[in-house]
Amino acid sequence: MFVQQPIAILDSGVGGLTVVKEVMRQLPREKIIYFGDTARTPYGPRSSEEVVKFTREIVDYLIQFRPKMMVIACNTATAAALDDIRSRIVIPVVGVINPGARAAIGRTVTGCVGVIGTEGTIKSGAYEQALCELSPHVQVISEACPKFVPLVEKGNFRSAETYETVRLSIGHLRSHPIDTLILGCTHYPFLIETISEVMGQGVNLISSADETAREISTILHDKRKLARGDQEPIHQFFCSGQPLLFKSIAQQWLGEQIELTPVVWQVPHIS
Amino acid sequence: MFVQQPIAILDSGVGGLTVVKEVMRQLPREKIIYFGDTARTPYGPRSSEEVVKFTREIVDYLIQFRPKMMVIACNTATAAALDDIRSRIVIPVVGVINPGARAAIGRTVTGCVGVIGTEGTIKSGAYEQALCELSPHVQVISEACPKFVPLVEKGNFRSAETYETVRLSIGHLRSHPIDTLILGCTHYPFLIETISEVMGQGVNLISSADETAREISTILHDKRKLARGDQEPIHQFFCSGQPLLFKSIAQQWLGEQIELTPVVWQVPHIS
Repeated sequence: MFVQQPIAILDSGVGGLTVVKEVMRQLPREKIIYFGDTARTPYGPRSSEEVVKFTREIVDYLIQFRPKMMVIACNTATAAALDDIRSRIVIPVVGVINPGARAAIGRTVTGCVGVIGTEGTIKSGAYEQALCELSPHVQVISEACPKFVPLVEKGNFRSAETYETVRLSIGHLRSHPIDTLILGCTHYPFLIETISEVMGQGVNLISSADETAREISTILHDKRKLARGDQEPIHQFFCSGQPLLFKSIAQQWLGEQIELTPVVWQVPHIS
Repeated sequence: MFVQQPIAILDSGVGGLTVVKEVMRQLPREKIIYFGDTARTPYGPRSSEEVVKFTREIVDYLIQFRPKMMVIACNTATAAALDDIRSRIVIPVVGVINPGARAAIGRTVTGCVGVIGTEGTIKSGAYEQALCELSPHVQVISEACPKFVPLVEKGNFRSAETYETVRLSIGHLRSHPIDTLILGCTHYPFLIETISEVMGQGVNLISSADETAREISTILHDKRKLARGDQEPIHQFFCSGQPLLFKSIAQQWLGEQIELTPVVWQVPHIS
């Protein structure tokens, strides 16, 4: 009876659009409402308490649309706030860390998995924990890449500067026997071509965005809540700042026009 | 509180062992109880009513072990009996068709997906339905391969006879613009090298076994029922006939010794 409810997806900025794009491709019948907290991006360097506070605010905003599922499409927010949000709302809450971890365990042959993410995600140890909970013998090599999100939020995906930044940040990972690298930040698929060039062939790149879309499908199916019917869904996008830049990046990434509503928080939360 | 309960996996014979192997790899903490209905294999040519009846009997047998999940690791039985079993028991029931369909939708670029399976599976149209429910514009080319399961149940994985059988059965699929082929029978991963040779590079092979293991992980995680702790689980295997052959194939495929209990049905159900 709730199958036509939307899926709510939130992120610190434009990163969660990588999840949106995959949901649109894998589940074209589903209506999406998206919130990008572009006024307060990046979340990576913030304290865990602050990320929990921001995530709660966005969830409170999105819940008014009566979504059937809440997707925390930000690794930093998943690491900090997934359990908190799960305990606060009754609909299923999906984060982006476990899907990526599960896919990596499925893919690795050497048992040595690399993880790149924001400082917040890497410091939290959330990927190590998720990977080791699934498979106790996996070896995990992690690296924080604080310079990647600002590049993406500026729309700077494939310049020489981007290549140099990626090379200096993760080039040394090639000295480890990693056969699978988790892009542990939903912003990173914007840089996937550059990351792939730097890591070279023979390393599987796991997009937590793609894997999360797949798990959204699995869980909605298990709960018998997949959308039906032939209506083309009309998605809604919200952002807390820089609407022109957000819209430009979103339309470029998604390859279609979007309907964007800038949201002005009543109390400015920018710290 | 139920996290140390086993996962029950059933199949018409040895095919479901491909799911077992992936669950052992992706979820090494989980205890498995497996039932292979080797006395009544193959299910493919049987009527849907008969397959439902057999599946119910096996579920009734396995339920005594208080599993936390029931996995119908047989495409024919999934097509015929998934909804029936779901309506009869309260634990989650996972089939093998939707995981393969979901993976194929995630992987295809051309939007043209091939499906091979038993006569029962192909005739049921279950893959077309699952694929089109997810993505209305996908094109599906199906082919029944009734000769594959008997080859696998005899342990005949890589002979010249096997190659010829595979070539004659699916070689013509190469004339379609298929970029993704679903191995829509859990027996077929035993033949994956031969199938790959016949289909050539450039066609993604989707093992419904691998994908089902992944979804078992997703659903148990969503329900907070993944096993914890460091105990090595001891799996249990049951089969209804040909125990020596079953044990030999199982140990060869899984790469380890197994504990097998032959089951004698009180009433012989072999038709």
